[in-house]
Amino acid sequence: MKVMILGIDGYIGWPLALREVMKGNDVVGVDNFFTRKRVKEVQSESVTPIPSFQERLKRLKEKTGKTVTFYKGDVSDPKFFLEVMRKEKPDAIVHLAEQRSAPYSMIGLKQATDTMVKNIVSTLNLIYAVKEIVPHAHILKLGTMGEYGTPNIDIPEGFFEIEYKGRKDFLPFPKQAGSWYHWTKVHDSNNLMFANRLWKLRITDVMQGVVYGTRTREIDQTGLFSRYDIDEVWGTALNRFCAQATVGLPITPYGKGGQTRGFLSLEDSITCLDIALSNPPKEGEYRVFNQFDEYYSVRQLADMVKEVYSETYKKVPEIKSVPNPRLEAEEHYYNPAHEKLAGLGYRRSKELRDEVRIILKDLNRFRRRIDKLKQVINPRTVWKESVTK
Amino acid sequence: MKVMILGIDGYIGWPLALREVMKGNDVVGVDNFFTRKRVKEVQSESVTPIPSFQERLKRLKEKTGKTVTFYKGDVSDPKFFLEVMRKEKPDAIVHLAEQRSAPYSMIGLKQATDTMVKNIVSTLNLIYAVKEIVPHAHILKLGTMGEYGTPNIDIPEGFFEIEYKGRKDFLPFPKQAGSWYHWTKVHDSNNLMFANRLWKLRITDVMQGVVYGTRTREIDQTGLFSRYDIDEVWGTALNRFCAQATVGLPITPYGKGGQTRGFLSLEDSITCLDIALSNPPKEGEYRVFNQFDEYYSVRQLADMVKEVYSETYKKVPEIKSVPNPRLEAEEHYYNPAHEKLAGLGYRRSKELRDEVRIILKDLNRFRRRIDKLKQVINPRTVWKESVTK
Repeated sequence: MKVMILGIDGYIGWPLALREVMKGNDVVGVDNFFTRKRVKEVQSESVTPIPSFQERLKRLKEKTGKTVTFYKGDVSDPKFFLEVMRKEKPDAIVHLAEQRSAPYSMIGLKQATDTMVKNIVSTLNLIYAVKEIVPHAHILKLGTMGEYGTPNIDIPEGFFEIEYKGRKDFLPFPKQAGSWYHWTKVHDSNNLMFANRLWKLRITDVMQGVVYGTRTREIDQTGLFSRYDIDEVWGTALNRFCAQATVGLPITPYGKGGQTRGFLSLEDSITCLDIALSNPPKEGEYRVFNQFDEYYSVRQLADMVKEVYSETYKKVPEIKSVPNPRLEAEEHYYNPAHEKLAGLGYRRSKELRDEVRIILKDLNRFRRRIDKLKQVINPRTVWKESVTK
Repeated sequence: MKVMILGIDGYIGWPLALREVMKGNDVVGVDNFFTRKRVKEVQSESVTPIPSFQERLKRLKEKTGKTVTFYKGDVSDPKFFLEVMRKEKPDAIVHLAEQRSAPYSMIGLKQATDTMVKNIVSTLNLIYAVKEIVPHAHILKLGTMGEYGTPNIDIPEGFFEIEYKGRKDFLPFPKQAGSWYHWTKVHDSNNLMFANRLWKLRITDVMQGVVYGTRTREIDQTGLFSRYDIDEVWGTALNRFCAQATVGLPITPYGKGGQTRGFLSLEDSITCLDIALSNPPKEGEYRVFNQFDEYYSVRQLADMVKEVYSETYKKVPEIKSVPNPRLEAEEHYYNPAHEKLAGLGYRRSKELRDEVRIILKDLNRFRRRIDKLKQVINPRTVWKESVTK
């Protein structure tokens, strides 16, 4: 199988490339190094030291003998992207090439607009490219559990049967995202659902939970780390908590910390994507996977990091709530379904506690790098204050 | 009250400007003449002869003594638009400045992308401009009944109570639009709903039905017609049927003609928008109006035009179904609510039959202009064939 990974240089893209190439699949990658540039703009960098992409490929070759075909460019540029698609004609395309930071999208009008346009246009380009060039290829698109928001009813996987005023229909679940970034993912999902109706494209739309961790089995084997961001714009909850504990900063849940989200380790995220690739949708099928392992409140995760860190390093990190810069319920009902991937054989690889232990051990090697980033960990982007400049 | 009309040169924009200015409101207009240009590109033009916008304003002054402040420019250009907003500080902004043709959006990737970007970015610019410059102003945004699609359950006005697995919530109604254009309106609605949650902006989101007609009371008084499009890209069902009957072409419903939609005369559309302006949302309120008068199947409308034409001109137009270029159910359940505008005092001004009689009379004056457009009335844009060029 030839798999094209859009955003191959990213947190998920790189370990997915390792998995697929080491399984013996042909891997083609596309990236414009947007995340590297934007992370640098907020005076941050990956805590794991990652070399240039060309160097990554060189080391991959040395360690495994495997090669990846790579194109540098922007998926939201139709000319560039259609050319790559015409040349490569992949069997499956994994679309990870979107602006992925919610706080970035909330800085102001410029960033909101950039996020909207880049994300929506890249997905439109992908839709048309597949329709014209490889109409039977599998589009595997990364969305987010954040598309659903936190409704007061159970969350199905994409669609549900509604009874209303005595009649029934099977309809898309209403979305209530919480940032411009999250809304772009909703818009993408809607556009993909429509593309499937129009042209019967085969699509898996992944509502992924928050991913954490430093390791996959292939990273264990090769030592070729993925990036690991901890700043307020590009880092995510659990990864940032582990970094805070590592350098003696307080662990900082936002507000009450009752925000509950689905979480998933990096290893399990890659496994889920690989399962989706190995079990593509039927001809003409649009399917939605809720891809997470278990749900936790942010407070539970802070407590867990504190406990595991204390056991290992005999020092007790402080937990200190900071004012919530986001717009989100801090106490709410949360019960999303996640049966479809389990139905295809997905099983959790590790307990959260064990995974946190491994992260802390890896981060301990890089504590001097984290020390340098201390001032970018805590939130400065206040969502209500988003401005036109 | 100072009302800013974005898209003041359009089918709805011009008669709304007449209504507001003749009521004594201050009217500020913005337009980039996008529709004029695009209509020309498909070798078509307005059946009603409309002069340049400057000439429109000159005639308005002559007929009524009234003036409108006008800015030529693109609402999707943030620099231009923010400057206009800072200068004018309106009390209400009516956003009609979007690419409004579903067939245009379905021509291919370029048009799909243009429609997505223009529409979404213009609404984002408006959101941020209001938030920063006039946070208490009323945003009156034109969406479409087409956002809902044709679900097999009743359609509420925007939100409904769902009971699912024993729990309840009050949620946005799931949308199922049928073209890229219609989806941009869904994306806009979602973005507006979120802007209201973030910043408590006062927003009326109008799900408007298909508008038809040549007349409003102010057009009667001044003779200053609005545009009237009949080509396959820019015209809409009933208006096109009337033009076909006028020049002896068959009336052409698409497919079975069982497609049912909400319809509304131009006069009533303007009245609804004026009622919304005169009764703005409460501080912090996002409200959705389903703005249409009655629903008809396309076949019923074809029959109605045939009947009225036959009575008046003693010639019987042919009705001839053409293959449906669109992606839509041709027989379906349809029962959308539309109580909110009625609750604010809206009443229909005329029976559909009487309105059709008036349209046919007006079009009869312009039959030579329609004769020249015969070759652009029938569909050439087949939605399934949308391409990357």
